[in-house]
Amino acid sequence: MRQKVYVEGSSPGIRVPFAEVHLSGGNPPVRLYDTSGPGSEPEEGLPELRRAWIDERAAHGTGPCVTQLHYARKGIITPEMEFAAIREGLDPKIVREEIAAGRAILPNNVNHPESEPMLIGSRFLVKINANIGTSAVSDSIADEVEKLRWATKWGADTVMDLSTGKHIHATREHIIRNSPVPIGTVPLYQALEKVDGDPVKLTWEVFRDTVIEQAEQGVDYMTVHAGVLLRYVPLAADRVTGIVSRGGSIMAAWCLAHHTESFLYTHFEELCEIFARYDVAFSLGDGLRPGSIADANDEAQFAELRTLGELTRIAWRHDVQVMIEGPGHVPMHKIKENVDLQKEICAEAPFYTLGPLTTDIAPAYDHITSAIGAAMIGMFGTAMLCYVTPKEHLGLPNRDDVKAGVIAYKIAAHAADLAKGHPTAQAWDDALSKARFEFRWEDQFNLSLDPDTAREYHDETLPAEPAKTAHFCSMCGPKFCSMRISHDLKEYAARGMAEKSAEFVDGGGKVYLPVVS
Amino acid sequence: MRQKVYVEGSSPGIRVPFAEVHLSGGNPPVRLYDTSGPGSEPEEGLPELRRAWIDERAAHGTGPCVTQLHYARKGIITPEMEFAAIREGLDPKIVREEIAAGRAILPNNVNHPESEPMLIGSRFLVKINANIGTSAVSDSIADEVEKLRWATKWGADTVMDLSTGKHIHATREHIIRNSPVPIGTVPLYQALEKVDGDPVKLTWEVFRDTVIEQAEQGVDYMTVHAGVLLRYVPLAADRVTGIVSRGGSIMAAWCLAHHTESFLYTHFEELCEIFARYDVAFSLGDGLRPGSIADANDEAQFAELRTLGELTRIAWRHDVQVMIEGPGHVPMHKIKENVDLQKEICAEAPFYTLGPLTTDIAPAYDHITSAIGAAMIGMFGTAMLCYVTPKEHLGLPNRDDVKAGVIAYKIAAHAADLAKGHPTAQAWDDALSKARFEFRWEDQFNLSLDPDTAREYHDETLPAEPAKTAHFCSMCGPKFCSMRISHDLKEYAARGMAEKSAEFVDGGGKVYLPVVS
Repeated sequence: MRQKVYVEGSSPGIRVPFAEVHLSGGNPPVRLYDTSGPGSEPEEGLPELRRAWIDERAAHGTGPCVTQLHYARKGIITPEMEFAAIREGLDPKIVREEIAAGRAILPNNVNHPESEPMLIGSRFLVKINANIGTSAVSDSIADEVEKLRWATKWGADTVMDLSTGKHIHATREHIIRNSPVPIGTVPLYQALEKVDGDPVKLTWEVFRDTVIEQAEQGVDYMTVHAGVLLRYVPLAADRVTGIVSRGGSIMAAWCLAHHTESFLYTHFEELCEIFARYDVAFSLGDGLRPGSIADANDEAQFAELRTLGELTRIAWRHDVQVMIEGPGHVPMHKIKENVDLQKEICAEAPFYTLGPLTTDIAPAYDHITSAIGAAMIGMFGTAMLCYVTPKEHLGLPNRDDVKAGVIAYKIAAHAADLAKGHPTAQAWDDALSKARFEFRWEDQFNLSLDPDTAREYHDETLPAEPAKTAHFCSMCGPKFCSMRISHDLKEYAARGMAEKSAEFVDGGGKVYLPVVS
Repeated sequence: MRQKVYVEGSSPGIRVPFAEVHLSGGNPPVRLYDTSGPGSEPEEGLPELRRAWIDERAAHGTGPCVTQLHYARKGIITPEMEFAAIREGLDPKIVREEIAAGRAILPNNVNHPESEPMLIGSRFLVKINANIGTSAVSDSIADEVEKLRWATKWGADTVMDLSTGKHIHATREHIIRNSPVPIGTVPLYQALEKVDGDPVKLTWEVFRDTVIEQAEQGVDYMTVHAGVLLRYVPLAADRVTGIVSRGGSIMAAWCLAHHTESFLYTHFEELCEIFARYDVAFSLGDGLRPGSIADANDEAQFAELRTLGELTRIAWRHDVQVMIEGPGHVPMHKIKENVDLQKEICAEAPFYTLGPLTTDIAPAYDHITSAIGAAMIGMFGTAMLCYVTPKEHLGLPNRDDVKAGVIAYKIAAHAADLAKGHPTAQAWDDALSKARFEFRWEDQFNLSLDPDTAREYHDETLPAEPAKTAHFCSMCGPKFCSMRISHDLKEYAARGMAEKSAEFVDGGGKVYLPVVS
């Protein structure tokens, strides 16, 4: 059985949710990180968890900057930091240090007090983002709010609302008010709608006003493609797949049409001033990311990355939190170079990558082609992985696709946590494997990333209730089970070893001689 | 459109199948490796492709050994080697060298003349195996033959028949007669049935007779757990999941009960003599492979591996082909050690791994947890990847599960081929990405690993036929498409660069200054 429990922090307002899995046979319960939030009625929205903390700081604040980076640098451990530290099972001091150094961000706009604080940084659990949003051909607000609920139920740590088409403002409002996780956006998409979809008509003023509109609503981080400079555009001309980032292609079109440097780059300091007032974090977009294996790690991509490094330092001067977006499509042997360069160029600001897909040949399965790359890039130090659904390159994700993408990415993130040796990661695997070895089927299901599907698959072959307590499964059948034989061996060996323990002899190397009678 | 085509070798009997994908817009066709075989009526079986080659050698043979390793060491390039070389796009001389050195195997029992020769070795394309087979709770022969057809349709390079329960012999007969790919088995499973499922009653004679029975039928490779020695069994006693290999646990039970060394180990040379007469290849089983993240890379596992290295050299003395089985469950940071040790200990005999799964927490998604590990271990040099289906740990795979497992593993294998730089690998990705960039939807579907699902997903959002030629997709909608903008940019940049080419200035590092007017 799974149950939501809360762990109290140092003051009453800090109540950190976990999903507690109760186990049978006297085994201790296992607490899992929980992103699902307290639940809400879509029209009412969530309670304002962080309201008192925000107001308290506003009452004593001395300047316009309200970012967690600002407080961290002053040596303050905010309630948000403590909350997030408890979620990670780590000392809040470490959280403050990592944020102060720019190696982690805690995205939480002061106008999104409903959010449950979380961390994005290589020293913490690898996080995943799910993209949702309406488009010109599919624009139901209710559907998107349901996708938000669904994505966080399965484990999305942040959600990006990438709505285009009609109702962008209203869709976002519903999403933010119901979201227990930070919400990200790409303000350029809405700005483009305001100029009838013509990139050439974009202006700094339209963009700025859109950013302020979204910051006022409570968007926690915004993708800004300020690294797509005029002089980089020709570098993408000979690629197999050109510019595949929507934001990147819009800005490239604008730069070429006006033969002027990008307004996102030339007005970057003004953006920082706006972001500082709300604690919006930058997600510096990789508008020139590769869209195919052939284009991975090319000069266009890395030229932009160098500019993102420059912008990172400017944002930090304004006490604004920053993470850096990364690719995309990258074959396995070129993945590590992406992380190494990003760390070096961007002074260890958190890396946030889209996959990467490790091959182009499997449309309809890009949650898998990219989970491979995501797990690897996570192991090398990427802090957050943007999910890819089975519909990537083909269509808009529905509810099933959102779940498939989230689960594939929870797997990738957790595999990376294990490989990085996060102190809380392996206990989960061990608890499940122990349940498996002891034929505690219900415990095994309840400890699964997706208990519903695990139970359903088991029941497909052996539906009867007694099978849930059987000491075998359908794979070998009742007569013949390696797990059961292995149990017998374990007892046998334990008896044998006790009797013969005096006779233990080292039989060359690290291999033992027979010890069982 | 996809069409089966044949490439002729140096003699008329050598006709190597490929799936040729015809593309629109004057793009050259793409030829893909094809495992699907010529097709058969289940009761009739396939034509005997290799009959003449086998008979020819028998007519001129001077000894009982008929293995490809035997011929390779004599400097002979067999028709099988040439056939497989054409499939790989490589010189047959390389194939002979790799087989002679033991770094590759070409599994093809002389009694399975229906099979299309293929290679398992780190210098060649990474191969995948699909497991099928009846069990005590599910025993339809027709279902298993259909799974064979289905698995090879989607790309399985070999199939293992792991049948237990009733009708083992008849099931295998139907599978071999209809299989265009090598068939592997674990003879111990059938031997166990012959002694009523009691491991203690097993004898060398029962096992030997079972091996001969299966070799006579045409099994191409057999898993033999000859490395599970009596003295290793206690090493597994303190594991979280003990011994999870069925073969390993059977042999461990036998060794403990008789307090005698494994008959597979003590009679190994006799096995070699049998295998040499049919050209059955060893798949030396890892009976002590880890069954959980906690147990990965432990002493039990590596002690057995050292014995497999010893057995490899014995098999080679008999000119018998050998590959080595590997894990299992391994976290990402411990994967490379498995390959490095295996190469060193087993003198580069091909490695054949089950996944490995990179986390234990996702039953129902272990095709994904293990595709991550499979892709990585393939990149490091593993020659063949045994698939894992979504039903792993939960139940028996049905038709959908077989497909899901095969596709996930084709992705892993191809991602590894790209990372290893196999000379033919990237052309496929490039052709698909080019089709994507040029909005050639039908070409994109036809080049996909799974054209049916790619087409279905596309049609879900944009079903109308005109959408197949549309220069946009449902993700951005018609007004707003980064790919289309990118095309405009490409033309724009090309024009601009032509005009301004005289003005090119290197703007520091490798970044160009603006060149577009």
